This record gives sequence, C-alpha cells and structure tokens, in this order.
Amino acid sequence: MTYCVGLLLNAGMVLLADTRTNAGVDNIATYQKMFTFEEPGERVIVIMTAGSLSVSQNVIARLQEDIADPDVAPENCIMGTKSMLTVAQIIGDKLADVSHDINQRMARMSQAASASMLVAGQRKGGVARMFHIYPEGNFIEAAADTPYLQIGEHKYGKPLLDRVITPETSLEDGRKAVLLSMDSTLRSNLSVGMPLDLAIVRDGECKIASQERIEADDPAFRAMSEAWSKALRDSFSAI
Amino acid sequence: MTYCVGLLLNAGMVLLADTRTNAGVDNIATYQKMFTFEEPGERVIVIMTAGSLSVSQNVIARLQEDIADPDVAPENCIMGTKSMLTVAQIIGDKLADVSHDINQRMARMSQAASASMLVAGQRKGGVARMFHIYPEGNFIEAAADTPYLQIGEHKYGKPLLDRVITPETSLEDGRKAVLLSMDSTLRSNLSVGMPLDLAIVRDGECKIASQERIEADDPAFRAMSEAWSKALRDSFSAI
Repeated sequence: MTYCVGLLLNAGMVLLADTRTNAGVDNIATYQKMFTFEEPGERVIVIMTAGSLSVSQNVIARLQEDIADPDVAPENCIMGTKSMLTVAQIIGDKLADVSHDINQRMARMSQAASASMLVAGQRKGGVARMFHIYPEGNFIEAAADTPYLQIGEHKYGKPLLDRVITPETSLEDGRKAVLLSMDSTLRSNLSVGMPLDLAIVRDGECKIASQERIEADDPAFRAMSEAWSKALRDSFSAI
Repeated sequence: MTYCVGLLLNAGMVLLADTRTNAGVDNIATYQKMFTFEEPGERVIVIMTAGSLSVSQNVIARLQEDIADPDVAPENCIMGTKSMLTVAQIIGDKLADVSHDINQRMARMSQAASASMLVAGQRKGGVARMFHIYPEGNFIEAAADTPYLQIGEHKYGKPLLDRVITPETSLEDGRKAVLLSMDSTLRSNLSVGMPLDLAIVRDGECKIASQERIEADDPAFRAMSEAWSKALRDSFSAI
C-alpha cells in the first residue's frame, strides 16, 4: 500500500509520501512515490502516486518523455500548459490510457492493476491547486472546506488532519501535521514504510522551497513521534 | 458499516457498539448490535455484530431459540457449555451455517452477504475470554499482547487504543478509551452512528456490571469529545 498526503494552505503546499512498495508482505521494496517537476519561478508540479507500480511508473515515464520531446505541443505537456487544471487533465488521461493498456493484458489472467495520483502545483500568475486523480482519470480538487487530499491508506492519519488543518495553518504546523499523520499510519499499516519524502512549496514562488528525505533512523522524526505518543497519553489521562 | 470494540483487561471487559445500519447512504436505520446473555454469577456472554443484518439477526435468533429449547443439549447451547471456547465454536458454526444458507440464495443474484462477531464472556470458575469470529466461522482470541478486538470500521479508532490500552488499564480508563476511539470513528465514517451501547463486565462477577445506551445528545459524551479535540489540538501546538 502507500500513504501520501498533501495540504493546500494559504501559505503554500506541504506534501508527504512514504516509499514502501510490496507484492505480498514477503516482498517489499523502497521506491520513490513523489516526483517533482519545476521551472523555478515559472512552474512547479509535484506528483505523488499510490497503487500498482507498473501503472504509476509508466505514467511518470510517459510524462517525462513528453517533456523531453520537442515534437509534443506545449498544451499537451504538463510543463507547457496554460493552467493547472489542464495539467490534471493530461495526467488523468495518461493514467487512464496506461491503466487501460495494462488491464487488457491482465484481464487474460483475471487480474487488474490500477493507480491513483495526487497532483499539486502552481504556475506563475496562477493559484496553487491540488488534485486527486482517480484510476479512471477523472479527478477532484482540494478546497477551503477540506484543504487536504490523501491517497492510499488514508484512514489512520485522517482524524488528526480533520482536527488541526485549516487553510490558515502555517507551513511549519502543516509539516508537523503531515508527519504525525504519517506516524499514525506507519504504526498501524506495515505496507506503509520509511523513508519518507517531504516537499514544501511556498505560495507564489513556483518552485520547491524545500525537499527532504526522512530516513528510518531520523532523530528529529523519532523525537516528534515519541513526544506525540506521550502527549496523547497525557491528554488521555487528563480528560 | 459498524464499529464495535471490546477490551479484555485484568479488571474485566469493556464493550462498545454503535447502532447504525445502512443499505446505501440513503437508507439508514438504528439497530441494536450488542446482545447480552447472562445467568448472573454463573455466566455472562456479550455478542456484538458487524456486517449483513440478515445474517447477524438470524444467528442471534437461532442462539436464542436454542437457549429456550429444552430439547437442545446443554453442550450445544451457549448458556450450557463448559467453556467459553465452546461458546465461540457454537457461534462460529451458527454463523457459518447461516452465511451458507443465505449465500446460496444470494449467489443466484451474484450477490453475497456476510457478518463477523465479537464474543466476550466468562463463566464461573473460568477466565474471561474474548473472540473475533470471522464470517467463515473460525475465530481468533484477544491476548495480553493485544488486549482488544475490533470489528467493522476499525481503522480510525485504532491509533488511540494502540497507545493507551494494556491489560493493566482500569475499567474507567477503558471506558474512556473505547468512547474516544468511537468518537474518532463517528467523525470520519457516516455509516457508524449514535446511539451507542456500552457494557462493562467486572472480572469474576460473571454478570453485566453496567449497561448503558448513550444517545446522540448525551452531554457527558459530547463534553468528553470536545475535551479530547481540544487536548489533541493543544498537544499538537505544544510539541
């Protein structure tokens, strides 16, 4: 499985993905699920993926090919379109195409593969937008009432987000919230695993403000996790 | 859906069930999912159900019929067996039989129905035991390493239980923990709903120590829910 979460805040966007993939619990591996595309100051796009790696890798590869291919018209390429909505449409179309191709093969074995994606981005002069793209290629968008999106194993980490995240949340608090949301998920679902990829985009900058990989032995993450557990237990005792 | 949770503590057992049933979000109703059987001082059994009401009601009805029927041998009746293990086996067999009967009809419509159950009980001279009975009739038992069991929508309410519940937890703290675990679930899954049925069994008493229905407008539950939200937000700010 996977857990990816993105916050769409007034101050910018906070994006977090785990890196565990598995084909059965006896076959796990580490794969990057967060992909960044930027022309700093002009356009930034972050894509996070969940589901079948055979689908998501293929989609990312096709997007990268189109960016590198001078014969692809700008309006058909995520780094050339005039709006983030079109970026979501292009990715949705690619995802639906790849799923269709792969599932034609898999149907012969009575199997199926699918993936979903979280796409966040901003282009110069536009607003920051964030989309959840379904396996069929259609999508929804984060909005002020629910300023976050999740893909993969979303349940364990949702109660915290519901309680603390509003559009006014700062990027620092957003960073803390997604890490704690991930921490709850890591504790309960073995198919979500360290290391983590975290990216922050400040509103209007149209570039990655910071990107980090948090390893399993990261002392700051571990300290935050332990402090949160203690705080929960203390709060539980107090009420 | 449903959320039922049971704690198997040294001091006794704490059991909580919601009451919402639904056939689509446009067809919801309130049905009791907790059923108690007792011969005070001799034997107490609490059954909680999740899944298709057509299955679970039928199982409970058959169990009640057997208890009332003088022709059923004590060893085949949950109020007559010599051990709680046999109680779990009887309920598992009934559940498997009913599922089989109903699914033979449903298969013609390419549909299926199933249910799972949480069974907690103690008989005089025996230890308190708690079982999770799967739709196929097999079961697992709560143990000291994981002294709680859940059926239905278990994910939202699990992180809290993992952090605070040990066999040494008091019945009062256990009561608070299951209610807060339910509160997180109620907030995130509309198919889990008030009112709630809560039962407490003190170890060795072999009777229901307390049983209450908590209505949607219960001021104490609401105050606890608000205090927990506030405590979570305060803890989040503090770390």
